[in-house]
Amino acid sequence: MSEPYTLVLLRHGNSDWNQKNLFTGWVDVRLSDQGVEEAKRAGELLADAGIEADVLYTSVLTRAIQTANLALDVADRAWIPVKRSWRLNERHYGALQGKDKAQTLAEYGQEQFMTWRRSFDVPPPPIDPGDEYSQAHDPRYVGIDGPVPDTECLKDVIDRMLPYWESDITVDLAAGRTVLVTAHGNSLRALVKHLDGISDEEISELNIPTGIPLVYKLDADFRPLGPGEYLDPAAAAAGAAAVAAQGKK
Amino acid sequence: MSEPYTLVLLRHGNSDWNQKNLFTGWVDVRLSDQGVEEAKRAGELLADAGIEADVLYTSVLTRAIQTANLALDVADRAWIPVKRSWRLNERHYGALQGKDKAQTLAEYGQEQFMTWRRSFDVPPPPIDPGDEYSQAHDPRYVGIDGPVPDTECLKDVIDRMLPYWESDITVDLAAGRTVLVTAHGNSLRALVKHLDGISDEEISELNIPTGIPLVYKLDADFRPLGPGEYLDPAAAAAGAAAVAAQGKK
Repeated sequence: MSEPYTLVLLRHGNSDWNQKNLFTGWVDVRLSDQGVEEAKRAGELLADAGIEADVLYTSVLTRAIQTANLALDVADRAWIPVKRSWRLNERHYGALQGKDKAQTLAEYGQEQFMTWRRSFDVPPPPIDPGDEYSQAHDPRYVGIDGPVPDTECLKDVIDRMLPYWESDITVDLAAGRTVLVTAHGNSLRALVKHLDGISDEEISELNIPTGIPLVYKLDADFRPLGPGEYLDPAAAAAGAAAVAAQGKK
Repeated sequence: MSEPYTLVLLRHGNSDWNQKNLFTGWVDVRLSDQGVEEAKRAGELLADAGIEADVLYTSVLTRAIQTANLALDVADRAWIPVKRSWRLNERHYGALQGKDKAQTLAEYGQEQFMTWRRSFDVPPPPIDPGDEYSQAHDPRYVGIDGPVPDTECLKDVIDRMLPYWESDITVDLAAGRTVLVTAHGNSLRALVKHLDGISDEEISELNIPTGIPLVYKLDADFRPLGPGEYLDPAAAAAGAAAVAAQGKK
């Protein structure tokens, strides 16, 4: 029940829209068959490492929830308490949601494309509330504490994610519970930026691979005692390279 | 946000130990392939009926959690909040846990067998804390508000389930939320007994089929406005008959 505390981050596996090379954001797509296998493999990695999650945090997006359910089922920890929050959602991709990545790259050029993908504080254009890929009228966001976003940059993600880290997740850590956070490329980049003290400039180079648990040991102030460690380092390196190459095909 | 409130009860599907004809109770067995299919079918029934659960309650037993995860995934409601409690667990079957039903019937005779299965207030003998099928040392029950049971009769299940109904589940109903409770034969019999005002004697005749959502409409005092309705009445009748015949093979 005392530090070091154990925090495990898990990015959801490949989704239907990853395979189609579309910007996803808050659009609630499902895992692909490949993503299902990645999630099960994550559960095996957790079990093999003897890491027993005591509480699960997820976004309210199905692909992260599927990943958590599959991984915990394989690891025989399906019964742990679950807490979900929109604050762990992927970055809202604004008007790019539902757009083809390669087509967007061709249409707007490399510079604009990379600005939208990787800029710290420049969000894409907002999505119209009437757009089929807007979440303005999605029932799961009724009653959240704040307006439903119509676009976000990474800074916006940090601004809505970190308060939840501080108000909820660290409370479970402080109680000595091993916490599993199953979320998304950008909500996890936001958390890793905070944990590792990465600058606004350098964070654009950080790529988190899908489906491989990333384990941190934290001190009493919830600061890392060392670098986060992937449970399958070789696969993680290959996965990060694949993420970096996304949209370039 | 006003009554009638909607409550949906769902008994988990066939498990590995149903198929082996063993007493299960609190032993944390998994769904069989048949149970997986039943759970998905339950999700289809919910979706077809247009019933959108706003919050999920489950026991802390894997077979109920698997059922809920599969059904909600099919119904596209995986993202709703989840609350788990040991108070929704199956009846603890005491020293019978892990025993073969047919062998127990042969060894103790029909009268004793039916007393253990169906008596309202006579529990089986307690299980030894050192027995491989005891939960005395299961980490998921550390810190629960009360001793971990070593056996239970249906009356015991009612005594630990009803306070949770009143303290938690009815609060979500009162907020206008459609509540899905995914649990077990005996914890759901306990709840139906309360809802329908079934006597201690008559409850022994009630059999709840697996995998078929049972829908209640409740008034402001959480009393049923009519009988609970199964979403697939023909399959429910066949399923209840199958449950009644259990252990007789």
